[in-house]
Amino acid sequence: MTAVKTEMDQLCINTIRFLSVDGVQRANSGHPGAPLGMATMAYTLWDRFLKHNPWNSRWQDRDRFVLSAGHASILLYSMLHLTGYDLSLEEIKNFRQWGSKTPGHPEYDLETGIETTTGPLGQGFANAIGMAIAEKWLSANFNRPGFDIIDHFTYVIASDGDLMEGVSGEAASMAGNLGLGKLICLYDDNGISIEGKTQITFTENVAKRFSAYDWQVIGPIDGFNTDEIEKAIKEAREDSERPSLIMCKTIIGYGSPKQGTEKVHGSPLGKEGVRAAKEKLGWIQEPDFHIPCEVLNYIRKAVERGKKAEEAWKEKMEKYAREYPEQAEKLQKQLSGELPDNWDEGLSSLFNNDSPPMATRSASGKVLNMLAGRIPSLMGGSADLAPSNKTLINDSDDFSNENPAGRNLRYGVREHAMGAISNGLALHGGVIPYTGTFLIFSDYMRPPIRLAAMMGLRVIYIFTHDSIGLGEDGPTHQPVEQLMSLRTVPNLTVIRPADATETAQAWKAAVGNNEGPTALILTRQNLPVIDREKYAKAQGLQKGAYVLWQSSENPPETIIIGTGSELEIALEAGHKLAEEGMKVRVVSMPSWELFDKQPEEYRESVLPSDVRARVAVEAGIKTGWEHYVGLDGSVVGMESFGASAPIKVLYKKFGITVEDVMARVESM
Amino acid sequence: MTAVKTEMDQLCINTIRFLSVDGVQRANSGHPGAPLGMATMAYTLWDRFLKHNPWNSRWQDRDRFVLSAGHASILLYSMLHLTGYDLSLEEIKNFRQWGSKTPGHPEYDLETGIETTTGPLGQGFANAIGMAIAEKWLSANFNRPGFDIIDHFTYVIASDGDLMEGVSGEAASMAGNLGLGKLICLYDDNGISIEGKTQITFTENVAKRFSAYDWQVIGPIDGFNTDEIEKAIKEAREDSERPSLIMCKTIIGYGSPKQGTEKVHGSPLGKEGVRAAKEKLGWIQEPDFHIPCEVLNYIRKAVERGKKAEEAWKEKMEKYAREYPEQAEKLQKQLSGELPDNWDEGLSSLFNNDSPPMATRSASGKVLNMLAGRIPSLMGGSADLAPSNKTLINDSDDFSNENPAGRNLRYGVREHAMGAISNGLALHGGVIPYTGTFLIFSDYMRPPIRLAAMMGLRVIYIFTHDSIGLGEDGPTHQPVEQLMSLRTVPNLTVIRPADATETAQAWKAAVGNNEGPTALILTRQNLPVIDREKYAKAQGLQKGAYVLWQSSENPPETIIIGTGSELEIALEAGHKLAEEGMKVRVVSMPSWELFDKQPEEYRESVLPSDVRARVAVEAGIKTGWEHYVGLDGSVVGMESFGASAPIKVLYKKFGITVEDVMARVESM
Repeated sequence: MTAVKTEMDQLCINTIRFLSVDGVQRANSGHPGAPLGMATMAYTLWDRFLKHNPWNSRWQDRDRFVLSAGHASILLYSMLHLTGYDLSLEEIKNFRQWGSKTPGHPEYDLETGIETTTGPLGQGFANAIGMAIAEKWLSANFNRPGFDIIDHFTYVIASDGDLMEGVSGEAASMAGNLGLGKLICLYDDNGISIEGKTQITFTENVAKRFSAYDWQVIGPIDGFNTDEIEKAIKEAREDSERPSLIMCKTIIGYGSPKQGTEKVHGSPLGKEGVRAAKEKLGWIQEPDFHIPCEVLNYIRKAVERGKKAEEAWKEKMEKYAREYPEQAEKLQKQLSGELPDNWDEGLSSLFNNDSPPMATRSASGKVLNMLAGRIPSLMGGSADLAPSNKTLINDSDDFSNENPAGRNLRYGVREHAMGAISNGLALHGGVIPYTGTFLIFSDYMRPPIRLAAMMGLRVIYIFTHDSIGLGEDGPTHQPVEQLMSLRTVPNLTVIRPADATETAQAWKAAVGNNEGPTALILTRQNLPVIDREKYAKAQGLQKGAYVLWQSSENPPETIIIGTGSELEIALEAGHKLAEEGMKVRVVSMPSWELFDKQPEEYRESVLPSDVRARVAVEAGIKTGWEHYVGLDGSVVGMESFGASAPIKVLYKKFGITVEDVMARVESM
Repeated sequence: MTAVKTEMDQLCINTIRFLSVDGVQRANSGHPGAPLGMATMAYTLWDRFLKHNPWNSRWQDRDRFVLSAGHASILLYSMLHLTGYDLSLEEIKNFRQWGSKTPGHPEYDLETGIETTTGPLGQGFANAIGMAIAEKWLSANFNRPGFDIIDHFTYVIASDGDLMEGVSGEAASMAGNLGLGKLICLYDDNGISIEGKTQITFTENVAKRFSAYDWQVIGPIDGFNTDEIEKAIKEAREDSERPSLIMCKTIIGYGSPKQGTEKVHGSPLGKEGVRAAKEKLGWIQEPDFHIPCEVLNYIRKAVERGKKAEEAWKEKMEKYAREYPEQAEKLQKQLSGELPDNWDEGLSSLFNNDSPPMATRSASGKVLNMLAGRIPSLMGGSADLAPSNKTLINDSDDFSNENPAGRNLRYGVREHAMGAISNGLALHGGVIPYTGTFLIFSDYMRPPIRLAAMMGLRVIYIFTHDSIGLGEDGPTHQPVEQLMSLRTVPNLTVIRPADATETAQAWKAAVGNNEGPTALILTRQNLPVIDREKYAKAQGLQKGAYVLWQSSENPPETIIIGTGSELEIALEAGHKLAEEGMKVRVVSMPSWELFDKQPEEYRESVLPSDVRARVAVEAGIKTGWEHYVGLDGSVVGMESFGASAPIKVLYKKFGITVEDVMARVESM
């Protein structure tokens, strides 16, 4: 079973195994089973194929490696340490401790060579598909005859669990459609998941399924045999038209007393288990974390190889820059994530008093198209709702196998994969991805949204049809709780603009935010464009909330806060109350996150602490708005799911009208 | 293309088509394309096969029909009206209007014959799999030789979009594994989705994929040919070992000027379009909503057939009841959803002062096993985390193809399908389903959670590993925002018990709630069992929040609110502050929803309006807690994602300690 090519291979593989085993044992927490089973696959891939430079983990044309089975994190850390990345043995010994570079599951850290955060199953697999799309797109746009400057593979190791998750099925279907020939997945087919043998529930024919997605399926091969793995990867690389799945038969926890069972998945082997495994695989019992000199000498050659490879690439790049200076500059700028000069010029005047009433989704479509002309890295699409989400870049083609230079992605009805693929696009670099779907279906893509926020990725979510305002499609399609629940995600910026002018500002904030994702929450229905000569400028959006209007210079008696389509209601109620003699302030609050980041002084200037007669109006769930209106204020919003009816009826029946706002204010 | 068997068939099919077309046209909103394409499939199924009684839509052994492509709702309404359900022509004319029985997407309404709420794609398909599991399970448990008293098919019509969604892939894989031979899916393979031809992104071989899941795949057949449809459904019914997918080739918007294009999907045909379609298919132009007498006479025979079929079944049931009186009574009780007498006896004393500290997940496992012994309809499982979620019923077997009488479901790593299948189990009746996964992965199953809440289904979600308290697995596995974001879902009851005694009460609340789903939020880590002789009884949980302890009879100066694992911190802080002379009240608040339902008087007694020095402590996102602490209070909780480290380090680093709570109180 352990037919490795050379003694050195065997030594290296066992070194990796026992670094992992000892790391888990010292942490007294972690997953030893997967590293013991996957070490040969990972080693063979890294030793024979992976194009990377451990001393420059940011080299732009490196192969991407994704450990989708993130619970095997210590395997990745072992590979990174051994091949010479900036990850010391101390860090391995510090596995799963506060402040270490070696957390329980891999966390995106380009300095260290960790390409993406994985753990929630299926996500890494779909990230890899995003990376492979980015590679294909950039190479189609920038490579020139004799200059394959973007030309790398994306490798992923996936587990049973990864392939059981729906998101991986969605992504795989898309990868097959797009002919991502440089995507190679090694499937650790060990037949065990946490509840026992995968046979208890996972009896489908995975090979046949992937073949149905139009993948090349290789194997099953012996996942402990370096020659077989090598041959399979070669075969995979040779098929440039189809992504490849290599079925690697392995044994979880290989070498340990409980190998081949779920008992070796998620907890340390224990002293006796470690001893027995070392004995069985012929490893010295002490010291822990043993790395034979010859192993380090051998594996660390990755540094030399990597440096040479990168230097060769740099030379090619320089020649390319001489022959295609404009392209080279554009590529570098795009890969760096830097925005073109003046990318936001004219955004503030795109809409004005002469603009007709329009849905914020329509305004968004116009802004997107304006920005797309200036920012070549903007690339994305919708989960089969482009005409509704207004996500098409009009003067671009579809990205497809036939036309990999196109910018419009066609995600199909696959919201979850769309989110996870977008993370891969952003992780790869060279792409600022955007997605599109109805706000209600943000629920289908919460896991990747969360990961984008955790990784600090610039991904822009276009969520349209943002409330009961979508009307007749009814409660299954009317978001009620989605807006508030997105606000609970750390580091996700949620922006719900109130008109076209705020929509332009929202896009500016989203594109300008390179520290995390932004969700744009947009209406289906038309909204009047606010007269910015009469009311405060839409630029106030950049601060999250701003005083749109107040009835007098004096401090207000009451503050009405509105967002999105309800700002119109807030404003009209404000005017009417002012006519009745009340001192009213109307605040537009498109973004909680942007507002909460402002200095206290600014926040106080918008919402003075001593004005407690506050009413918020938003066609979403009320819970949470006490954040701004407190216990003495009031919220005009939703308490239940919506209903199927024309929009006007719904606003009236659910009590989100000018009269309702006025009544609340008056009752305070 | 329109090879129907008889003239009557043709008349009926066109009646269905034009009821749909006219309904959409009158509403000036809706989806005419799907009904025009699917009418023949739906008609043939209902006319030739469907076992149902329009006059008793609750007949327990009826075939279940799920329109997964919920946007074709008007097709279902037309079928219901024509076959004689309690759905008048007025309702069809009132399509998509406030208060009608005919909302934009089908909404679960057993009175009317609507088996489930559909629209969000993939959900109905997976619901159907839950229904088929329920049928298989109940029949295995209750049928006796000669008495197939539970013996019906589950039919589903699905669209391209349904099959692109990952959730349907997960569910289909499971259906194949479980050998659900009585599940039959008619796939409306019309090659069009909203963005255009499905070929732009959906080029996978669906037949091969389903065959890989171990389904019988039939076709492609002509979806306009009644004979072919009939033959295919027969073939599907004959294979009792495998679920069947019938590939029906159809044309979206058949008969209308824009047939075969995405333009006919989501908006009315328009006057001219309606006219042209009627002309093309030989339908009279006026009146609208025309139902030829002979059609009604013919289709309404469903009532006679249904009554006879149900009567025959009742007779069989009576005989069964005589031969197996105990079984018959048990079955009826189970199907009615009624709980056995004394089902909750002893719950309040299951844990007491002598109980050792234990994780609330462990307490939950004990309660589940106690209840499972009394409530035979409890059935469920985990998405491959049973040992961690403590969801196994110890003295029961797995539900499997070989042993369909077992109660433990093995969902595999398929959280989304687990949620949607559970909805199907609950919808079928006879089952109170529960699910299990880590709280973080509630994100993978939000769409079905929402639908369970909307439909008011009794589904119990066991979510363990509920905070940073899970420790070393790190931020990818530590829920931060999930708890609060579940609280935003209308009609979902979220309960986070603080110890074993509250956990028993939480289960009582969950099982007793037959108006909606309940999420139990449970710890991985051990918690001390609160001394209920010294502190208030855990029964207080039933009111959502209760005064656990206060330092003096006088009104408190400050209130500390804790939930789950943080109640311990709240309590200790309270004691220490009391020692310093402060008048402190400590409130246990396991459930916002239960508390907010209490009369104002009770709420006021727990949280007196004039005590504003309130601190809430919960190891989740702070946003939202102002609901109870207002603008003058304070929250000890999370503002960011977690980190990988041992639990004690995490609580300290993230500032969720007794000292932090005390400092907050003292600063007020």
